[in-house]
Amino acid sequence: MGKQVKYLLDESQIPDRWVNIAADLPGEPLPPLNPGTGQPLGPEDLAPLFPMGLIEQEVSMEPEIGIPEEVVDAYRLWRPTPLIRARRFEKALDTPAHIYFKYEGVSPAGSHKPNSAIPQAWYNKQEGVKKLATETGAGQWGSSLALACEMFGLECEVFMVGASYDQKPYRRAMMETWGASVHRSPSKLTEAGRSQAEHATGSLGIAISEAVEVAVASEDTKYALGSVLNHVCLHQTVIGQEAIAQLEMAGEYPDVVVGCVGGGSNFSGIAFPLLRKKLKEGLDTRFVGVEPSACPTMTKGVYAYDFGDTVGMTPLMPTYTLGHDFVPPPVHAGGLRYHGVAPILGALVKEGLIEAQAIPQTEAFESAIIFARAEGIIPAPEPTHAIQYVINEAEQAKQEGDERVILFNLSGHGHLDLAAYQSYLSGELVDLEFSESEMNRALESLPEAPSVA
Amino acid sequence: MGKQVKYLLDESQIPDRWVNIAADLPGEPLPPLNPGTGQPLGPEDLAPLFPMGLIEQEVSMEPEIGIPEEVVDAYRLWRPTPLIRARRFEKALDTPAHIYFKYEGVSPAGSHKPNSAIPQAWYNKQEGVKKLATETGAGQWGSSLALACEMFGLECEVFMVGASYDQKPYRRAMMETWGASVHRSPSKLTEAGRSQAEHATGSLGIAISEAVEVAVASEDTKYALGSVLNHVCLHQTVIGQEAIAQLEMAGEYPDVVVGCVGGGSNFSGIAFPLLRKKLKEGLDTRFVGVEPSACPTMTKGVYAYDFGDTVGMTPLMPTYTLGHDFVPPPVHAGGLRYHGVAPILGALVKEGLIEAQAIPQTEAFESAIIFARAEGIIPAPEPTHAIQYVINEAEQAKQEGDERVILFNLSGHGHLDLAAYQSYLSGELVDLEFSESEMNRALESLPEAPSVA
Repeated sequence: MGKQVKYLLDESQIPDRWVNIAADLPGEPLPPLNPGTGQPLGPEDLAPLFPMGLIEQEVSMEPEIGIPEEVVDAYRLWRPTPLIRARRFEKALDTPAHIYFKYEGVSPAGSHKPNSAIPQAWYNKQEGVKKLATETGAGQWGSSLALACEMFGLECEVFMVGASYDQKPYRRAMMETWGASVHRSPSKLTEAGRSQAEHATGSLGIAISEAVEVAVASEDTKYALGSVLNHVCLHQTVIGQEAIAQLEMAGEYPDVVVGCVGGGSNFSGIAFPLLRKKLKEGLDTRFVGVEPSACPTMTKGVYAYDFGDTVGMTPLMPTYTLGHDFVPPPVHAGGLRYHGVAPILGALVKEGLIEAQAIPQTEAFESAIIFARAEGIIPAPEPTHAIQYVINEAEQAKQEGDERVILFNLSGHGHLDLAAYQSYLSGELVDLEFSESEMNRALESLPEAPSVA
Repeated sequence: MGKQVKYLLDESQIPDRWVNIAADLPGEPLPPLNPGTGQPLGPEDLAPLFPMGLIEQEVSMEPEIGIPEEVVDAYRLWRPTPLIRARRFEKALDTPAHIYFKYEGVSPAGSHKPNSAIPQAWYNKQEGVKKLATETGAGQWGSSLALACEMFGLECEVFMVGASYDQKPYRRAMMETWGASVHRSPSKLTEAGRSQAEHATGSLGIAISEAVEVAVASEDTKYALGSVLNHVCLHQTVIGQEAIAQLEMAGEYPDVVVGCVGGGSNFSGIAFPLLRKKLKEGLDTRFVGVEPSACPTMTKGVYAYDFGDTVGMTPLMPTYTLGHDFVPPPVHAGGLRYHGVAPILGALVKEGLIEAQAIPQTEAFESAIIFARAEGIIPAPEPTHAIQYVINEAEQAKQEGDERVILFNLSGHGHLDLAAYQSYLSGELVDLEFSESEMNRALESLPEAPSVA
């Protein structure tokens, strides 16, 4: 041993711009559509929900977008995040591969989510917004937005999926510590909530409807989303930019870049800056997005226009989908339980620039235990999927006797997800089957829209 | 804003020696005594419990002790830890004081405890020990030792206080993730446990008895303790040494150094290297140890020889004590619920080199909320006590219009303690009274021993 494991940057090296991969795509991206008119969406369609600063980012084709100084100042609380050479993990796997991970779990909320929550709160604040409403499932996004709102003096109202609200009181306590008000969804506070009162456990779809209703009902309240949209993926690109600088310190460059994919924000964050570099410099880096085999959007879904939410309130977006009312099985990686994927990421998968893999959760947790025992960090359930794929690559490197360099994004820690580990360790965790027939049923209700083939 | 907040060291700056403050004390320290003979303890008295490498450190008068290279390598997983200028906290307090904190919550277990767990596991491994037995209350120490044992290939058996075992399944899941076996104490595995089966909730005293019994019963099993002893305080001095180097980067030096005190290990860790510097260079730095007013060992206890555990199995140690069978009220800061304090720290308080303050838990949590909303980090219940005292100092700085520099040790995060925050935020948290009459009862059973006056 005795060799460096952490590659740290100075605060002055926090990126001062975000990478907008939309500028690198061949041709114009397919536009989102107004579900009422079937016409491409204009900024005015989004204005009730988002401030213009974010809407401009959502549709921008500029290759880079500057990061406001106050946002960089807030990033200083935890950024730059470390890049870590997983030497003990390599040894545990007995692999010649060099494994690096970017660790986003050092943020206050414990994941990459504040990278977007901070600028979202800031842009809203600039336009006089007083309150942000949002939904949260497992709680990573809700807690990140709670912190961001507290930092910029905004109110924050979070509709938390009922089942999570009951099972994860700690996430709720975290949000309340940061000053947010948290409601169990379905609540009695909204029409949407009251109309769904019979759903004892709630769902992300209902919680989104409640948050959107609150935002639309009030002039000085807007809505915030933690993944899927272009501006969210954009904000996350600080991850990959830092990783490039840190890999230079290490004197290596990855052959393969790995991340888990739910809505796609953490994967986009690490991948897009390296993808731009690949396209510009003609490198042969591979990019692999890993999803749960119980919710295999990219590997088994169809590429089509669909709603972003379950109840069909959002614009139509062109992407991979299992059908907007497909209800993913309750895997522990709550952040990966999404029927779609960010349109920009979907387009890159469609173009063949990004590979997709699906992993069952028992294998993901088995891999996480190996990682936690070697490196000390207990990963959140979501990035355990990336770790399982990394082990596959490391094993192949061993068989082929090559020293390939693997980079993955460890998007968060699992301190508030230890019940999932307990379930695995006690032998109770099982794999949940993906139902093709359920997907086929859900795909029958795809909205009418142009073909994207 | 726009000013640096984090001061980071390179891995090459992890200290390569520990600071042994015993060498700086005026005169010889009072020896621990064998409770059977009343004679000063010899190494042979400790040999059934600890390896010789640690016993030598326990009695050493050398000013510095080298850190083994493999221990430094394990420290690399999270050390050096950041020193952070709490600019947003200063702003929230509207104080001219400069507030710095050393953040030990970045360790895998979430506190400073691995700083000693790692070397304890290593020294045991060197002497052929196969298994370590220990007790844990809230779980910080048990999880740190679980990780350390995993890293050096030792078995780890943890007796966890029954009430915590039931209330904190997440800490148990963390220990099991790192490969430890965890028993609810009182257990049926030991004589001590079986004899105390009527104690439904258990106690730290019973758990210690169980772990000691397991260690003594087997040739290749030893016992490990997470605080109080000289070698544990010694290991923690990596904290203060790093802080000195980081304060140099910041171009400042503290007027006052603050930490919470239970057994005393995190406070010793940050204070001792700066105390040596004060003594050598004639500085006028103040040092303040902060304890809960429900368990005011240093501010209301007596200075006397007493047992380190509740049931009276350990050597007699000269220190401040509330009586070894004093049962502290169930404050949320489980790590501060100890009837005594490290003898070396007690001697420094007695000498007037360290001040002691007691803080009620409601004020501590009130302060923690201010801190968490400003800096993003949610502190463990223990260091909230230090934060409350820091606010007092910052307030005084404001009244006196001086820019005093305050350094405190943020010994851990509160991700596994959010139930305590929930209790505070819901208005259910109350202050628990310290009972003088209960202390007086407990002090009546002080063992016969020489006076220490």
